[in-house]
Amino acid sequence: MSSTYGENLKLSIFGQSHGPAIGMTLDGIPAGLPVDVEKLQEFLNRRAPGQNDWSTPRKEEDRPEILSGIVDGFTCGAPIAAIIHNKNTRSGDYNNLKDVPRPGHADYTAQVKYGGFQDAAGGGHFSGRLTAPLCIAGGMCKQWLEEMGIRIGAHILAIGECGDLYFDPMDPEVESVGKDFPVLDEEAGQAMRDFISQARAAGDSVGGIIECAVAGLPAGIGEPMFGGVESRIAQIIYGIPAVKGLDFGIGFDCACVPGSQSNDDFSIVDGQIVTQTNNAGGIQGGITNGMPVIFTVAFKATPSISCAQQSVNLKTMEEVTLEIKGRHDPCIVPRAVPVVEAAAAIAIYDLILGNTQTSRRK
Amino acid sequence: MSSTYGENLKLSIFGQSHGPAIGMTLDGIPAGLPVDVEKLQEFLNRRAPGQNDWSTPRKEEDRPEILSGIVDGFTCGAPIAAIIHNKNTRSGDYNNLKDVPRPGHADYTAQVKYGGFQDAAGGGHFSGRLTAPLCIAGGMCKQWLEEMGIRIGAHILAIGECGDLYFDPMDPEVESVGKDFPVLDEEAGQAMRDFISQARAAGDSVGGIIECAVAGLPAGIGEPMFGGVESRIAQIIYGIPAVKGLDFGIGFDCACVPGSQSNDDFSIVDGQIVTQTNNAGGIQGGITNGMPVIFTVAFKATPSISCAQQSVNLKTMEEVTLEIKGRHDPCIVPRAVPVVEAAAAIAIYDLILGNTQTSRRK
Amino acid sequence: MSSTYGENLKLSIFGQSHGPAIGMTLDGIPAGLPVDVEKLQEFLNRRAPGQNDWSTPRKEEDRPEILSGIVDGFTCGAPIAAIIHNKNTRSGDYNNLKDVPRPGHADYTAQVKYGGFQDAAGGGHFSGRLTAPLCIAGGMCKQWLEEMGIRIGAHILAIGECGDLYFDPMDPEVESVGKDFPVLDEEAGQAMRDFISQARAAGDSVGGIIECAVAGLPAGIGEPMFGGVESRIAQIIYGIPAVKGLDFGIGFDCACVPGSQSNDDFSIVDGQIVTQTNNAGGIQGGITNGMPVIFTVAFKATPSISCAQQSVNLKTMEEVTLEIKGRHDPCIVPRAVPVVEAAAAIAIYDLILGNTQTSRRK
Amino acid sequence: MSSTYGENLKLSIFGQSHGPAIGMTLDGIPAGLPVDVEKLQEFLNRRAPGQNDWSTPRKEEDRPEILSGIVDGFTCGAPIAAIIHNKNTRSGDYNNLKDVPRPGHADYTAQVKYGGFQDAAGGGHFSGRLTAPLCIAGGMCKQWLEEMGIRIGAHILAIGECGDLYFDPMDPEVESVGKDFPVLDEEAGQAMRDFISQARAAGDSVGGIIECAVAGLPAGIGEPMFGGVESRIAQIIYGIPAVKGLDFGIGFDCACVPGSQSNDDFSIVDGQIVTQTNNAGGIQGGITNGMPVIFTVAFKATPSISCAQQSVNLKTMEEVTLEIKGRHDPCIVPRAVPVVEAAAAIAIYDLILGNTQTSRRK
Repeated sequence: MSSTYGENLKLSIFGQSHGPAIGMTLDGIPAGLPVDVEKLQEFLNRRAPGQNDWSTPRKEEDRPEILSGIVDGFTCGAPIAAIIHNKNTRSGDYNNLKDVPRPGHADYTAQVKYGGFQDAAGGGHFSGRLTAPLCIAGGMCKQWLEEMGIRIGAHILAIGECGDLYFDPMDPEVESVGKDFPVLDEEAGQAMRDFISQARAAGDSVGGIIECAVAGLPAGIGEPMFGGVESRIAQIIYGIPAVKGLDFGIGFDCACVPGSQSNDDFSIVDGQIVTQTNNAGGIQGGITNGMPVIFTVAFKATPSISCAQQSVNLKTMEEVTLEIKGRHDPCIVPRAVPVVEAAAAIAIYDLILGNTQTSRRK
Repeated sequence: MSSTYGENLKLSIFGQSHGPAIGMTLDGIPAGLPVDVEKLQEFLNRRAPGQNDWSTPRKEEDRPEILSGIVDGFTCGAPIAAIIHNKNTRSGDYNNLKDVPRPGHADYTAQVKYGGFQDAAGGGHFSGRLTAPLCIAGGMCKQWLEEMGIRIGAHILAIGECGDLYFDPMDPEVESVGKDFPVLDEEAGQAMRDFISQARAAGDSVGGIIECAVAGLPAGIGEPMFGGVESRIAQIIYGIPAVKGLDFGIGFDCACVPGSQSNDDFSIVDGQIVTQTNNAGGIQGGITNGMPVIFTVAFKATPSISCAQQSVNLKTMEEVTLEIKGRHDPCIVPRAVPVVEAAAAIAIYDLILGNTQTSRRK
Repeated sequence: MSSTYGENLKLSIFGQSHGPAIGMTLDGIPAGLPVDVEKLQEFLNRRAPGQNDWSTPRKEEDRPEILSGIVDGFTCGAPIAAIIHNKNTRSGDYNNLKDVPRPGHADYTAQVKYGGFQDAAGGGHFSGRLTAPLCIAGGMCKQWLEEMGIRIGAHILAIGECGDLYFDPMDPEVESVGKDFPVLDEEAGQAMRDFISQARAAGDSVGGIIECAVAGLPAGIGEPMFGGVESRIAQIIYGIPAVKGLDFGIGFDCACVPGSQSNDDFSIVDGQIVTQTNNAGGIQGGITNGMPVIFTVAFKATPSISCAQQSVNLKTMEEVTLEIKGRHDPCIVPRAVPVVEAAAAIAIYDLILGNTQTSRRK
Repeated sequence: MSSTYGENLKLSIFGQSHGPAIGMTLDGIPAGLPVDVEKLQEFLNRRAPGQNDWSTPRKEEDRPEILSGIVDGFTCGAPIAAIIHNKNTRSGDYNNLKDVPRPGHADYTAQVKYGGFQDAAGGGHFSGRLTAPLCIAGGMCKQWLEEMGIRIGAHILAIGECGDLYFDPMDPEVESVGKDFPVLDEEAGQAMRDFISQARAAGDSVGGIIECAVAGLPAGIGEPMFGGVESRIAQIIYGIPAVKGLDFGIGFDCACVPGSQSNDDFSIVDGQIVTQTNNAGGIQGGITNGMPVIFTVAFKATPSISCAQQSVNLKTMEEVTLEIKGRHDPCIVPRAVPVVEAAAAIAIYDLILGNTQTSRRK
């Protein structure tokens, strides 16, 4: 299957960039959970474009219309469905776009897979715009997790060579992350913004890394093997366009750290078992150990650039030079921060729903 | 769910380290596919321990008994089941192991999740031994992929600070990788072995990175969003014990490369559309573009070490010092190479089974 | 999970009777399949109420708005989403309805399950109105099956004691079934309509049986055990409100027929292997044998009646007499005929998508 | 998929009639549940053949070997796997069996689907023998349900024209059903046995109907639409070989009963809400209402008969007369009674696992 996710909840995402609407259905959610629509809108606004000079100026209003599943501000047990009407709907002939695939986009792979029937306009179903319904679902899950004391926050760890501070893995400051351009070190943030502006001026684009933390998770969440927390988070994170890397805890650095330093020793603090370090990123054997879950996500540079690129005309089978006009988002990483939070919230909430079985195990 | 994987095939893995047997069932495989049992055994032998001085001396014979699904050397359409009888079965009382969880292992998380009912002996279901049935399933999928001209190979990219060469991303030399201690650069391999031996002498352990390539994949394999090639590979790779990182193509390096350099331009070679570089690791929008799929996997150091570690006694709730006797595998990375190949083979074969739908799309 | 169906396609149905909209998403459909919207509308009109005197007079216009997945009349490979806006949306306070559950409805079970948070208005997500999105999905699948030469038709086999003729199991006349009040024997149809009118006059309701046939199916569709054609059809048919029975071929009569008479002997006709009878309803071992698939579905009488009934006030825990005002549909069986066809079409199309694997088995 | 079942648990069944072993894996079961192996064996013995003169004399010892998931008599949270070694393993050449398919069996459909690679010996994966691992899983689920006060019992309702009494739908006497030849009315049972013996003498076979009841179920179990109790039970029941019909409550009779009589009115007894009748079979809107769940299952006559039958030689494409030698089970209905109980237990336990979400809804 493709645009569905979840073992205990079932998320289904639909829509194309220039179709009538994009949206999502979310099935399997318990009844009686509150949904704060205003707070959800604030969350969605964090991924909205056109708010500043380091982002694309195109203005969308991502105001979801809730079609089902929520009555008087509470979930009613029926599947939740919500849509966002597209303002820039399909008009004119986009078929010539199919002939010359843009490097770095899914144009060519979609053409091979769907044989020319794909909706090529604006990237169709492969557009980053599809992360908006992901944020609707994730924004709700985030609210329900917060009710349980589980908080999720992310920040930009790097843009190009400009790096932010890391979260404190023992006590990540998820609440104090700024919301407009989320970094821990404001100076690093300024360097990143400058770097993005330079890329824009050059008609180029840049990538970056996002660090995300889930604090307040109880121990015992997750399943062995393919149902582990890492596996479940990985499946949804890699569903976000442009993600090319993901690691947990000290991640790739673990190759260089001997076991005597990477093992997280146990101790007792205030009668609670904790680890003295958190190199594992809060997960052992796929199951949470009660420490914060921490992971980083690498995003490639936005493929839409103004520079000349080499492509081929699929119809004539000739090599051509492609120049894409218009203003583009030179870096999607800032807008991707709430998307990563949303994906994490969905994965964690799904695992917690499944974990109701665990309570019987005690 | 937990120890099951697959959208089109259904893999179910079972067993505990010291139980009567470990094994797997593999449902959804077409009839009429040949299975070369001898070749499968050779593949399984690659992950067997005790073959040299940089590995654990414990000797197992992982000879699978095929219970169903294969008749006269061909799949018969019924679910395939195979088991490996454990030689070191459970004897004596392992309950004291439950009281003091080993740092870096799943002992503590299993205790929280299963409330003391988990099989603690040898790590139970969380043991690396469970990668043997994964290799049975993966070894078969690998054979079926080879029949289609799809070849999978992996090598040790790094142990500690000792690094091997990278695969050529345009044409990874998957066949030429040595099988005993699989590296591309034999000199680097010697440095790695020395590094492992030093760790062993110190009673310590080390981690590393494995690079894996899938060559010969046609374009058009995979689904959008959560069913993308990266998502599907990630779910199974993170089901391997000790994996803490995974990236595709240039992966985490993509944060530092501008779009003008990371986009893979197209050209035509011998009448075929190819990309001029392979920074994307052969995947765009979750779908293969016909270039080799390449990814790297980070393994943490084996948590079993001889050095003194801090733990807690769960019964008395006192902090204790733990010293684990016996000889341990100071580095599981060499043995994990076929496991990564097996996981990739299962994920790719699953995607290809689903892709039979794609052919109707043309 | 609940309102999702499918192994190879993924259908998700959402909405409540008096919510803003009802709808469905349908993921996993190949690209390039034509969708005739007008023909789809004709199909949907067959389940619309208010068309005659034996049905409820409430007038709805079930005109679906397609939000995604179809471009220029063809599927584009992305998930299909379609909604129907509700005209009679929720207004006023329906909470008193929660206090006194209607016998035969899901009011009480919803109250227990959702603890008072369910959408009680008009039956909420349990309303028969939710069969409209099922017909959107099913109507499309029906068109795609027809392209392959697979035709699905159903008729009213019985209303009360009034019985229609059976389909010829060897060659069901699925095309000749009338569409307005679908019966094979028009005289029987008149008796049924009279019977329904009498029930209406008495403030009562009646049930009935629908017989459905799938003609033109090739042999080899379906999977063993729980993935058999009967299992897959049964899961979706029992998702239709008011269904209480389902059997295949001679069904319950098979208890009385000895093996020598119920076994379907083989013969060769025009070089094709056929069975001489079709007692099995076209399925053996869960897999089609090339003969028509035939099954019957029993619907209970509509629970909404005007007669006085005994219920309880859940708030005061007192027994009360309930009299439901308003005009009700005295028999939903005629309107359920296209719903059964839709469900069958979805199940069969799902199986055929999975069966692309089978072709490799030959 | 095929031989897997379950939304919250995952059951996978494998094996062929004459392969080395048959078995099952059962994943997703909470840790800490007791398994009484002796009681399980007694349950399995109820479906064993060769115990009397109305059954086949072939003697099997269905003694399961538990490979994983159970330690010291309790589930340990890891997947449960159990196998039964086949005594009559494949020997000699069964390929000629593939040439002439037996009417009423899955020989022909397997040949079409698997293209000659199927395991034809003894019916392979389609053999009724595969209900033994179903009974292993179901026998365990039945024990766990009993711990919660949920009891499941079934009896033979009819063999040919010989009918037993019905369960009292308000209070089914599930415990008092005899275990050897399970009927409520012993006289009817004798008539049935005579009827079977006559069929055997004539070289023929007979079918029948089984009625099953689940008592002690709380209200609120099940999900709307395709996740309803009827849908979930139907999927697994139709996975049992030879099942051709299934209905709930008054089932097919509901066609003839007006709503004023079929609606189950509510009343209060001992402070509990109950229905005054149980025509719905304990289920409304797919969700249990606290009354016993009751359903009947129709089995066709065993296809293995001694009489001459018409078939075709698939190789030569000639019509041939087939006479099958050897003694056959003239009626599998008595042995199918525990199989129906097992299937019901698995479906209900799966629903209850999922229902842990429900408790949060209150």
